[in-house]
Amino acid sequence: MSVPVDLREQLAALGGPFQPETIATMNDYKVQVVRVQGEFVWHKHAATDDFFLVLDGHLTIQLRDGDVELGPGQLYVVPAGVEHCPRSDGADVLLIEPIGTVNTGDPD
Amino acid sequence: MSVPVDLREQLAALGGPFQPETIATMNDYKVQVVRVQGEFVWHKHAATDDFFLVLDGHLTIQLRDGDVELGPGQLYVVPAGVEHCPRSDGADVLLIEPIGTVNTGDPD
Repeated sequence: MSVPVDLREQLAALGGPFQPETIATMNDYKVQVVRVQGEFVWHKHAATDDFFLVLDGHLTIQLRDGDVELGPGQLYVVPAGVEHCPRSDGADVLLIEPIGTVNTGDPD
Repeated sequence: MSVPVDLREQLAALGGPFQPETIATMNDYKVQVVRVQGEFVWHKHAATDDFFLVLDGHLTIQLRDGDVELGPGQLYVVPAGVEHCPRSDGADVLLIEPIGTVNTGDPD
Protein backbone atom coordinates (compact mmCIF):
# COMPACT_ATOMS: atom_id res chain seq x y z
CA MET A 1 0.00 0.00 0.00
CA SER A 2 1.23 3.47 -0.85
CA VAL A 3 1.69 6.00 1.89
CA PRO A 4 1.60 9.78 1.66
CA VAL A 5 4.41 12.16 2.54
CA ASP A 6 3.77 13.91 5.84
CA LEU A 7 5.02 17.50 5.92
CA ARG A 8 5.28 17.66 9.73
CA GLU A 9 7.42 14.53 9.82
CA GLN A 10 9.64 15.82 7.04
CA LEU A 11 10.06 19.18 8.75
CA ALA A 12 10.92 17.51 12.05
CA ALA A 13 13.69 15.61 10.29
CA LEU A 14 15.39 18.67 8.80
CA GLY A 15 19.00 19.23 9.74
CA GLY A 16 18.86 22.98 10.21
CA PRO A 17 18.03 26.28 8.54
CA PHE A 18 18.64 26.60 4.80
CA GLN A 19 19.15 22.86 4.38
CA PRO A 20 16.30 21.90 2.06
CA GLU A 21 15.32 18.27 1.74
CA THR A 22 13.59 16.79 -1.28
CA ILE A 23 10.50 14.95 -0.07
CA ALA A 24 8.88 14.12 -3.40
CA THR A 25 9.32 14.56 -7.12
CA MET A 26 6.75 15.36 -9.76
CA ASN A 27 7.86 14.89 -13.35
CA ASP A 28 11.17 16.79 -13.50
CA TYR A 29 10.42 18.91 -10.45
CA LYS A 30 11.53 18.46 -6.85
CA VAL A 31 9.26 19.19 -3.90
CA GLN A 32 11.27 20.34 -0.92
CA VAL A 33 10.80 21.50 2.63
CA VAL A 34 13.17 23.99 4.19
CA ARG A 35 13.50 25.94 7.41
CA VAL A 36 14.23 29.60 6.76
CA GLN A 37 15.84 31.34 9.70
CA GLY A 38 17.75 34.53 9.13
CA GLU A 39 18.54 35.92 5.71
CA PHE A 40 19.45 33.87 2.65
CA VAL A 41 21.41 35.39 -0.26
CA TRP A 42 20.18 37.51 -3.15
CA HIS A 43 19.89 35.34 -6.22
CA LYS A 44 17.82 34.62 -9.28
CA HIS A 45 17.01 31.74 -11.57
CA ALA A 46 17.17 32.77 -15.23
CA ALA A 47 15.25 29.78 -16.54
CA THR A 48 12.64 28.96 -13.90
CA ASP A 49 10.00 30.38 -11.62
CA ASP A 50 10.41 29.62 -7.93
CA PHE A 51 7.45 28.40 -5.84
CA PHE A 52 7.19 29.17 -2.09
CA LEU A 53 4.37 28.02 0.21
CA VAL A 54 4.64 28.93 3.88
CA LEU A 55 3.63 26.07 6.17
CA ASP A 56 4.46 27.69 9.49
CA GLY A 57 5.83 31.02 10.63
CA HIS A 58 6.27 34.18 8.64
CA LEU A 59 8.45 34.60 5.54
CA THR A 60 9.59 37.75 3.82
CA ILE A 61 10.61 37.36 0.19
CA GLN A 62 12.66 40.45 -0.48
CA LEU A 63 12.47 41.66 -4.07
CA ARG A 64 14.33 44.63 -5.52
CA ASP A 65 11.05 46.54 -5.84
CA GLY A 66 9.56 45.62 -2.45
CA ASP A 67 8.96 42.80 -0.04
CA VAL A 68 6.35 40.05 -0.23
CA GLU A 69 5.09 39.07 3.22
CA LEU A 70 3.76 35.54 3.66
CA GLY A 71 2.13 33.79 6.58
CA PRO A 72 0.95 30.19 6.93
CA GLY A 73 -1.12 29.03 3.98
CA GLN A 74 0.16 31.76 1.69
CA LEU A 75 2.19 31.14 -1.47
CA TYR A 76 4.15 33.21 -3.92
CA VAL A 77 5.83 32.37 -7.21
CA VAL A 78 8.96 34.39 -7.92
CA PRO A 79 9.13 34.82 -11.69
CA ALA A 80 12.17 33.60 -13.60
CA GLY A 81 14.92 36.17 -13.73
CA VAL A 82 13.70 38.13 -10.71
CA GLU A 83 16.24 38.68 -7.96
CA HIS A 84 15.01 37.66 -4.54
CA CYS A 85 16.26 37.02 -1.02
CA PRO A 86 14.17 35.12 1.54
CA ARG A 87 14.34 36.23 5.17
CA SER A 88 12.58 35.06 8.32
CA ASP A 89 12.74 34.88 12.08
CA GLY A 90 11.73 31.26 11.56
CA ALA A 91 9.50 29.77 8.89
CA ASP A 92 8.84 26.32 7.46
CA VAL A 93 8.45 26.48 3.72
CA LEU A 94 7.47 24.16 0.88
CA LEU A 95 9.54 24.81 -2.26
CA ILE A 96 9.01 23.53 -5.77
CA GLU A 97 11.68 23.91 -8.43
CA PRO A 98 12.96 21.91 -11.39
CA ILE A 99 15.36 19.14 -10.40
CA GLY A 100 18.87 20.49 -10.72
CA THR A 101 17.98 24.03 -9.69
CA VAL A 102 20.65 25.43 -7.39
CA ASN A 103 19.08 27.22 -4.44
CA THR A 104 21.56 30.07 -4.54
CA GLY A 105 20.63 30.73 -8.16
CA ASP A 106 22.55 30.79 -11.37
CA PRO A 107 26.28 31.43 -11.30
CA ASP A 108 27.19 34.88 -12.59
CA MET B 1 4.08 45.81 -3.95
CA SER B 2 3.50 42.14 -4.67
CA VAL B 3 1.05 40.18 -2.59
CA PRO B 4 0.94 36.45 -1.90
CA VAL B 5 -1.88 34.08 -2.77
CA ASP B 6 -3.87 33.12 0.32
CA LEU B 7 -5.13 29.53 0.24
CA ARG B 8 -7.96 30.16 2.72
CA GLU B 9 -9.29 33.04 0.63
CA GLN B 10 -9.06 31.01 -2.55
CA LEU B 11 -10.84 28.04 -0.98
CA ALA B 12 -13.61 30.28 0.33
CA ALA B 13 -14.19 31.55 -3.22
CA LEU B 14 -14.62 28.09 -4.77
CA GLY B 15 -17.92 27.45 -6.53
CA GLY B 16 -18.45 23.91 -5.32
CA PRO B 17 -16.98 20.41 -5.22
CA PHE B 18 -14.84 19.26 -8.15
CA GLN B 19 -14.57 22.76 -9.56
CA PRO B 20 -10.84 23.47 -9.36
CA GLU B 21 -9.61 27.02 -9.67
CA THR B 22 -6.16 27.98 -10.83
CA ILE B 23 -4.64 30.29 -8.23
CA ALA B 24 -1.09 30.57 -9.56
CA THR B 25 1.15 29.32 -12.31
CA MET B 26 4.76 28.20 -12.17
CA ASN B 27 6.51 27.82 -15.49
CA ASP B 28 4.10 25.67 -17.52
CA TYR B 29 2.32 24.28 -14.46
CA LYS B 30 -0.93 25.37 -12.86
CA VAL B 31 -1.45 25.47 -9.10
CA GLN B 32 -5.06 24.80 -8.22
CA VAL B 33 -7.30 24.46 -5.22
CA VAL B 34 -10.28 22.15 -5.29
CA ARG B 35 -12.93 20.89 -2.92
CA VAL B 36 -13.31 17.13 -3.10
CA GLN B 37 -16.67 15.89 -1.84
CA GLY B 38 -17.89 12.50 -2.91
CA GLU B 39 -16.19 10.37 -5.51
CA PHE B 40 -14.52 11.65 -8.66
CA VAL B 41 -14.00 9.41 -11.71
CA TRP B 42 -11.30 6.82 -12.38
CA HIS B 43 -8.76 8.33 -14.74
CA LYS B 44 -5.09 8.58 -15.55
CA HIS B 45 -2.67 10.97 -17.16
CA ALA B 46 -0.31 9.21 -19.56
CA ALA B 47 2.21 12.02 -19.75
CA THR B 48 2.30 13.58 -16.29
CA ASP B 49 2.47 12.91 -12.60
CA ASP B 50 -0.34 14.37 -10.51
CA PHE B 51 0.41 16.25 -7.26
CA PHE B 52 -2.08 16.30 -4.34
CA LEU B 53 -1.58 18.15 -1.04
CA VAL B 54 -4.42 17.99 1.48
CA LEU B 55 -5.06 21.34 3.16
CA ASP B 56 -8.10 20.38 5.19
CA GLY B 57 -10.16 17.26 5.70
CA HIS B 58 -9.35 13.73 4.69
CA LEU B 59 -8.78 12.49 1.15
CA THR B 60 -8.65 8.95 -0.19
CA ILE B 61 -6.82 8.50 -3.46
CA GLN B 62 -8.06 5.17 -4.70
CA LEU B 63 -5.52 3.26 -6.78
CA ARG B 64 -6.09 -0.09 -8.45
CA ASP B 65 -3.70 -1.74 -5.99
CA GLY B 66 -4.92 0.00 -2.83
CA ASP B 67 -5.93 3.30 -1.33
CA VAL B 68 -3.72 6.17 -0.21
CA GLU B 69 -5.15 7.95 2.83
CA LEU B 70 -4.21 11.60 3.30
CA GLY B 71 -4.93 14.03 6.09
CA PRO B 72 -4.04 17.73 6.41
CA GLY B 73 -0.40 18.42 5.58
CA GLN B 74 0.05 15.18 3.68
CA LEU B 75 0.87 14.94 -0.01
CA TYR B 76 1.01 12.25 -2.64
CA VAL B 77 2.17 12.24 -6.24
CA VAL B 78 0.28 9.86 -8.50
CA PRO B 79 2.76 8.64 -11.11
CA ALA B 80 2.02 9.16 -14.79
CA GLY B 81 -0.07 6.40 -16.25
CA VAL B 82 -1.47 5.21 -12.93
CA GLU B 83 -5.24 5.04 -12.71
CA HIS B 84 -6.67 6.85 -9.70
CA CYS B 85 -9.94 8.09 -8.30
CA PRO B 86 -10.10 10.66 -5.47
CA ARG B 87 -12.84 10.31 -2.88
CA SER B 88 -13.68 12.26 0.25
CA ASP B 89 -16.40 13.20 2.67
CA GLY B 90 -15.03 16.72 2.27
CA ALA B 91 -11.45 17.81 1.69
CA ASP B 92 -9.68 20.91 0.47
CA VAL B 93 -6.80 20.02 -1.80
CA LEU B 94 -3.92 21.78 -3.55
CA LEU B 95 -3.26 20.32 -6.99
CA ILE B 96 -0.33 20.89 -9.32
CA GLU B 97 -0.41 19.73 -12.92
CA PRO B 98 0.92 20.94 -16.27
CA ILE B 99 -1.23 23.64 -17.83
CA GLY B 100 -3.63 21.95 -20.21
CA THR B 101 -4.02 18.80 -18.13
CA VAL B 102 -7.64 17.65 -18.16
CA ASN B 103 -8.74 16.68 -14.64
CA THR B 104 -10.66 13.65 -15.86
CA GLY B 105 -7.53 12.34 -17.54
CA ASP B 106 -6.65 11.46 -21.06
CA PRO B 107 -9.39 10.49 -23.49
CA ASP B 108 -9.38 6.80 -24.25
